[in-house]
Amino acid sequence: MTQRLEAQLAFLAEADRLKSVLRASKLIDNSRHENSAEHSWHIMLYALFLADQAGPEVDIGRVLRMLLIHDIVEIDAGDAPIHGQVDHAAMAAKEAAAADRLFGLLPLDQAREFRALWDEFEAAETADAQFAKAIDRVQTPLANLANGGGTWREYGVTLDQLEARVGSPIRRAAPGIWAHIRPRIAAWFSANSTD
Amino acid sequence: MTQRLEAQLAFLAEADRLKSVLRASKLIDNSRHENSAEHSWHIMLYALFLADQAGPEVDIGRVLRMLLIHDIVEIDAGDAPIHGQVDHAAMAAKEAAAADRLFGLLPLDQAREFRALWDEFEAAETADAQFAKAIDRVQTPLANLANGGGTWREYGVTLDQLEARVGSPIRRAAPGIWAHIRPRIAAWFSANSTD
Repeated sequence: MTQRLEAQLAFLAEADRLKSVLRASKLIDNSRHENSAEHSWHIMLYALFLADQAGPEVDIGRVLRMLLIHDIVEIDAGDAPIHGQVDHAAMAAKEAAAADRLFGLLPLDQAREFRALWDEFEAAETADAQFAKAIDRVQTPLANLANGGGTWREYGVTLDQLEARVGSPIRRAAPGIWAHIRPRIAAWFSANSTD
Repeated sequence: MTQRLEAQLAFLAEADRLKSVLRASKLIDNSRHENSAEHSWHIMLYALFLADQAGPEVDIGRVLRMLLIHDIVEIDAGDAPIHGQVDHAAMAAKEAAAADRLFGLLPLDQAREFRALWDEFEAAETADAQFAKAIDRVQTPLANLANGGGTWREYGVTLDQLEARVGSPIRRAAPGIWAHIRPRIAAWFSANSTD
């Protein structure tokens, strides 16, 4: 048991470094960039309180577990801004190597279980993963609306790009949320066109 | 549904402010103080991966929900450092008022459900709440051991005080964890006595 607990505590200590991985997005008060650990906390809160937007086949408990670990690979791979220029194949390889190393710190049974959960999130094929992905996309547009454009302004994003990168995954698994926020987003782009 | 979603989104936007509530403890790399949002994320990770240290009556899914919301009242009430001089009755009153306001932003059914969950955590009487409280106490001593004493040094904490404030709740609901880390803690205090 001692060896098992040592392995678990080593993983949990390593996880502390996610608090130093900065995202492109800022806090609503614009005071600083958000880090991936507090982002993970916030979107779990979104998942829990917007659970009534999920289909009946979605298990919110599993979604919370997915969201809890979904960004852990960024400790090694960093955050790839959704509107940035990213080599997706290279990033996927870096993230897979990060998952090998980080989940590899855990006892074997937990390493397998949570690597599989992370793989499921990444694949975005199950109902749970699709709702988790949708929720992961919801927070930043709302922060951008609240803080004057945020990453949309910074990356010169168009409404079409936003529909593809953010709207699609939200509409797929949480259509009620997208129907609710899209008019506000469209109004912002109409008033602040970056085309 | 629109009004319901508006209320939920208002609560979720307000929650962003927890990222600006600073705790007494620092990150393991000593680079800065930790905030309550990323702390909440980290202890949920502790609860998930150390679930095998909980008694069989503990429902980890409920523990995760408790930990997700447990610090939300700090948006209004601030963080009370465990080793600081705190008027506990005044703090409890401030936190109750904060819970009224913050959970009050939600639709009535969710306000009731999650206020009850927060009250259960605070009361620390159920097995789920006691395990959640234990986990909430585990992370900081481990960070202090890793970063050279941290809040123990800052607040001149003694081993006896630590046993009472931190050891007791951990021993009550996760005795295996306390048995594992106590010798390391005792060795630190023996080498760095602040008595």
